[in-house]
This record gives sequence, C-alpha cells and structure tokens, in this order.
Amino acid sequence: MKLYDTQQAPNPRRARMFMAEKGIDLDSIEVVQLDLAAGDNLGDDYRRRNPMGTVPTLELDDGLCLGDSMAISRYFEELHPEPPLLGRDARDRAVVEMWNRRMELNLLFPVAMAFRNITGHFKDRERCSAEFGEISFERATAMFDFMDRHLAEHSHVAGEAFTVADITAVCAVDFARVIKLRIGDERPNLARWHAAVSERPSARA
Amino acid sequence: MKLYDTQQAPNPRRARMFMAEKGIDLDSIEVVQLDLAAGDNLGDDYRRRNPMGTVPTLELDDGLCLGDSMAISRYFEELHPEPPLLGRDARDRAVVEMWNRRMELNLLFPVAMAFRNITGHFKDRERCSAEFGEISFERATAMFDFMDRHLAEHSHVAGEAFTVADITAVCAVDFARVIKLRIGDERPNLARWHAAVSERPSARA
Repeated sequence: MKLYDTQQAPNPRRARMFMAEKGIDLDSIEVVQLDLAAGDNLGDDYRRRNPMGTVPTLELDDGLCLGDSMAISRYFEELHPEPPLLGRDARDRAVVEMWNRRMELNLLFPVAMAFRNITGHFKDRERCSAEFGEISFERATAMFDFMDRHLAEHSHVAGEAFTVADITAVCAVDFARVIKLRIGDERPNLARWHAAVSERPSARA
Repeated sequence: MKLYDTQQAPNPRRARMFMAEKGIDLDSIEVVQLDLAAGDNLGDDYRRRNPMGTVPTLELDDGLCLGDSMAISRYFEELHPEPPLLGRDARDRAVVEMWNRRMELNLLFPVAMAFRNITGHFKDRERCSAEFGEISFERATAMFDFMDRHLAEHSHVAGEAFTVADITAVCAVDFARVIKLRIGDERPNLARWHAAVSERPSARA
C-alpha cells in the first residue's frame, strides 16, 4: 500500500486524519510526498494512477488506485468499521453524508476556490478569476458564521459524535489561514469546537 | 415521507433517478414542487428543513430532513441494498465513490457553475462572475472529452456495472444543454453510453 500525499493541502490531510482515527499507523505504509508547486501531480506517471491529477491517491498492493480522499476514507471505514466515522445505521449514515457534503461543498470548496483564484499559487496551471476568488471568500466567511450558529446547538458537526464531517470541517477551517480567514473572538462556538477537534491526536497526522 | 423537488435542476433528478432504480414509486410519496425562480427554496419555512436552501430535501415521517441528493441516495441504498448502486464490497464501494465524486466535482459542478455565472438565472440571488462562468465552461468541455476517452474502455463510468456515478454523469450531461454544451458527433463513446443510460426507465423520473 502506497499513499501519494502532500503536506500543504487540505484533501490529503482529510485522508490522513481519517486513517489515524482508524488506528492506521502512517509510518507503517509507504508515503510518497509530492511537490505540487513543482507539478509532481501533473506528470504522466502520476496521471496514470489518478487522471484528475488530484492528491491524495492510495495505491493498493494489486495496483488499484483510489484517487480521492473520500474514496480512501470509505475504503478504510469498510475494512475497519470501528470507530464508525461515517455513521452507525441507515439514518445516521445519511445524516453524516449530508453534513460531510455541506462541509465540503459550502466550506472547503469556497476556501479552496478563494485560495486558487486569489493567491496566484495556481496561475501557472489553470485560468484564474480574482473576481470569483472574492466571491468565494465572501461565501467562506458566511459559512464560518453559519458554523458558529450551528455549533451553538451541537457538540460536533453532524450531531453529538465525532465523524468525518468534523475532519472535513477542521481541514477547511485550518486551510482558511492561507486566505487570512480566521475564527476570531466573534465565533465562540466555532472556536470551542475547533479547539476540541484539534486536540485529537489525529489532527497532527 | 415528503420529497421537496424541482423539475428544472440536476440534483433533484439525481435523487429521483436513484429512487426509481431502487423501485420506489414516486407516485406513492408526497412530492412538493418548488419554484426556484420564485425563491420557494429561500424562505424561512424551507430553510428550517434545509438551512443551505438546496433542493432536493427528503423529509421523513419523524421530521428528519435529508437535504442533499447523495444523503437521500445513501439512505435508500441502506434500506434497499438491491440492486447495489454504491458498490458491492469495500473495494468496489471505494471505486464507485471515487467515480461518483469525479462526475460531481469535475463534470456536474463546472456545468452548474457555468449555468449560474453565465446565464443570469441566479443574478438576483448571488454575486456572479461571467469570467468564472467561462472558465467553468472550458472545464466542462474538457471533461466531456475526458469522458469520451474513459468510456472507450468502460461500458459505464465506474467500470462495467451501472452505478450512482452514471446517474450523476447523465444528469450533468443533460443539464449541460442549458449552457449549450452537447455531446456531438465527435464524442462517440460518450454518445453510446448516454444513449444506453437514457433508455433506462429511471432516466424519465
């Protein structure tokens, strides 16, 4: 098993946190660090494993490549059902799916879109729009406010248990530093949740 | 059980197709049609069910609201495992997850972003960027080409079985009509796949 990884980006961190929560020792598997700035993920060799060129990719011993953080997470949830991070029963799994997707589509994506379109880090590899970067920044900020209200009534994102939705959310909130969006004193519920999730050993994975 | 639905948008169609494939008769459940142009999905009443204001939402008899097409799909997969649309085992489920997400993130989203930022349909409800609309159109077009190459080697998106990845993809390809992006004669593999998937009774749901 081989994990194609990079330390700088939020999606690989999602996969590493998930694996750490499942008790998988990352020191026990081969980890290949890619340098995104150098375009390691855009060459033919990597694209044979992952045609989208995204990171992370998990390569299984038989050659199957899972080139998506949630595909990797779901694979390990199936192999190691405890502790459940994707829900315990039909209803719970649907609720976790809903909240994980809200965290991805409404929080992580606006943060990532602001980063890619404002900072210039991606200007050598894709057409950027500073205007859409600004729009994305506004949306991410609004979602920080939504999260603060939501977490006033729930200990975790998908309810009262720690789930993959918390992993996606904390990776998004931490990555938001690159666009200078921070929790601040005005979002005490988001701050309380963030401190609690950040104390988990998996947060350092 | 109540489904908040709209006929015009791709995400509600994803949920309806999934339910139809599971043998759920939509005539047997209460369906509430929302008029997105009139803002039916943005009022307080709907936002109490789905704070994101997205469509569809499935409201269960006990009041739980699943406000996301994939959350609804996962719920019905758990209740009605056959035929499996999210994969048959750990490995297969990871592969289906990966391809469904590729179809969503790299195909449906660029199409939707082009629609929202170019056509003006959303200008009264969100800040739009024509520039990002153009970028999104280019990305959707490139993904149509990728799909044609991919489907030269596979009968379906995630391999040889019909799965949720085909549902997401066909909803995206059909919705691309609104941005005047079509399969055309130059993408024969995509056309062959599209014809086959469109013949399924669920495609009319």
